[in-house]
Amino acid sequence: MSFKDTTHDVVAVGNALVDILAQVPDSFLEAHGMEKGTMSLIDAERALQIQESLGETVQTSGGSAANTMSGIASLGGSALFIGKVSNDALGDEFAREISSIGVEFVRGASVEGMPTGRCVIAVTPDAQRTLNTFLGVSSLLTPADINTAAIESGKVVYLEGYLYDQPAAKAAFREAANCAHGASRKVSLTLSDSFCVQRHREDFHALIADEVDILFGNEAELEALYETRDFDVAVSNLRQHCEFAVITRSEKGSVVVTHGEVLEVPATRVAKVVDTTGAGDLFAAGFLFGFTRGMELSRCAEIGAIAAAEVISHMGPRPLTQLKNLIA
Amino acid sequence: MSFKDTTHDVVAVGNALVDILAQVPDSFLEAHGMEKGTMSLIDAERALQIQESLGETVQTSGGSAANTMSGIASLGGSALFIGKVSNDALGDEFAREISSIGVEFVRGASVEGMPTGRCVIAVTPDAQRTLNTFLGVSSLLTPADINTAAIESGKVVYLEGYLYDQPAAKAAFREAANCAHGASRKVSLTLSDSFCVQRHREDFHALIADEVDILFGNEAELEALYETRDFDVAVSNLRQHCEFAVITRSEKGSVVVTHGEVLEVPATRVAKVVDTTGAGDLFAAGFLFGFTRGMELSRCAEIGAIAAAEVISHMGPRPLTQLKNLIA
Repeated sequence: MSFKDTTHDVVAVGNALVDILAQVPDSFLEAHGMEKGTMSLIDAERALQIQESLGETVQTSGGSAANTMSGIASLGGSALFIGKVSNDALGDEFAREISSIGVEFVRGASVEGMPTGRCVIAVTPDAQRTLNTFLGVSSLLTPADINTAAIESGKVVYLEGYLYDQPAAKAAFREAANCAHGASRKVSLTLSDSFCVQRHREDFHALIADEVDILFGNEAELEALYETRDFDVAVSNLRQHCEFAVITRSEKGSVVVTHGEVLEVPATRVAKVVDTTGAGDLFAAGFLFGFTRGMELSRCAEIGAIAAAEVISHMGPRPLTQLKNLIA
Repeated sequence: MSFKDTTHDVVAVGNALVDILAQVPDSFLEAHGMEKGTMSLIDAERALQIQESLGETVQTSGGSAANTMSGIASLGGSALFIGKVSNDALGDEFAREISSIGVEFVRGASVEGMPTGRCVIAVTPDAQRTLNTFLGVSSLLTPADINTAAIESGKVVYLEGYLYDQPAAKAAFREAANCAHGASRKVSLTLSDSFCVQRHREDFHALIADEVDILFGNEAELEALYETRDFDVAVSNLRQHCEFAVITRSEKGSVVVTHGEVLEVPATRVAKVVDTTGAGDLFAAGFLFGFTRGMELSRCAEIGAIAAAEVISHMGPRPLTQLKNLIA
């Protein structure tokens, strides 16, 4: 495998969201009709209501694929993120913050009247996180936002399945994949969410068959993709459709599925699981970091497990230690 | 005129809005595509964008009829305000603040997922105010929000024309008027906005003919009501349709129109007009205060002029001095 003239290890295309975190009492969830521990998509009206009821907040750039890019940077790799923010205060904050952690940011076009997306995270005293996501402009990605030079600068392009709810974003994924393959790059996709997979199963199948070299997903997403509750059936389907896939199974570790083999890699032990948010995102970061350095697949999955273990041992979806020190 | 068993001078039904004021540079207006000095209705998306771009803000309860009630209280009268806020932070703020200035607040039902309305006011260094109103739940008033006991507690009910854009609010106005008349109270209406009058001219005509005892408006609103640029033509129309009407003409003063007479009352002189926001609202307050105390119509209009003069001599739509001292 050679990646001629690349300047980045991974280029991701995903939802550019600002995480807005606040400590709240349990009564806050009840008052706002939130179910603890869940993620809800909300509209702008509800975003106003919830945000205005918060006290002090902490803001940081977030979003699934952006979290993965933070992992690449923390591992010592080079990452670029393509996402859509608006020309507003949160959009500027996203750009500033993701750049500050060493991820190059290519800012998609803003859309008149549509604010930057955000995930309002209510943290209760039991350290549980209840997420309320207003996608805003982030989900309105179009092929015009796919910067060709940016895509070609990466060894691997990484596409965030969450975006796949919008027709224009589907077209943008095709554009990114065509561009990447035209420059002999690899295309990876994370399924992101089993409900999104259910809503767009046929389109995901077509994208995977046509364009995806490396598929990331967890058990629930894989089972949604193949409409089965039987993991082994899903895996045997997968082997026919994808160059290779990496399926995460929480504490059971991960499974790398290729045409030739099914490789099981155990999870890295964690003294105490504090917050599982970002586990899948950081696993993908570790795996892709190893992959872009030509490591064996089992080592790629090990690095993924190490990165995931770090992120679930504390609050928040971004590594708090330099991951490159953990894999040395 | 007798108002048996009343506990309030005026009961208003209007938009319950929180004013959110911030000092901004001129470049802020340009960056957000705002035209200086105008009022724009905005949606929740734009409210998020604008609010998040503001620095320090000052919040106060606002809205046209609520401003009028603040004037009644400042004049030493007793006022009640019926409006719709949500069970959110801004809604609580509205309730707390309007109560603190001595206006009784009857809180209409909240609507799931719809936040409290707000007017985001960008104040530029030249002291101009550019208003961006997200009506939110305030405009969703229905007959169910019309508390009968509250309506009957006032000598006069005062209806805010701004609300008249929604069918349910039109029904709520009818409900309030029927209830008031059933208890031998007077019904007043302010036209609020010439564009709103244009959109609902026929409905306004019917409401005025059927239910309105005292009509408030300015020249532009009156001319919109009768589709004429000729003030005298409009006034002669008015005399046939309304027990009496009070038309404000800025520095030209006001005109009280009854079946029998047309009474002109000059404006009160102001050393320097700083901000005309709230002029009409406070004129109505002064007039209604006099009216509920059985004063002559010319004196009612004089008190209106005094209250209006106070409010245009400083920033903001609420009196900053005790109006009762000005009319002593």
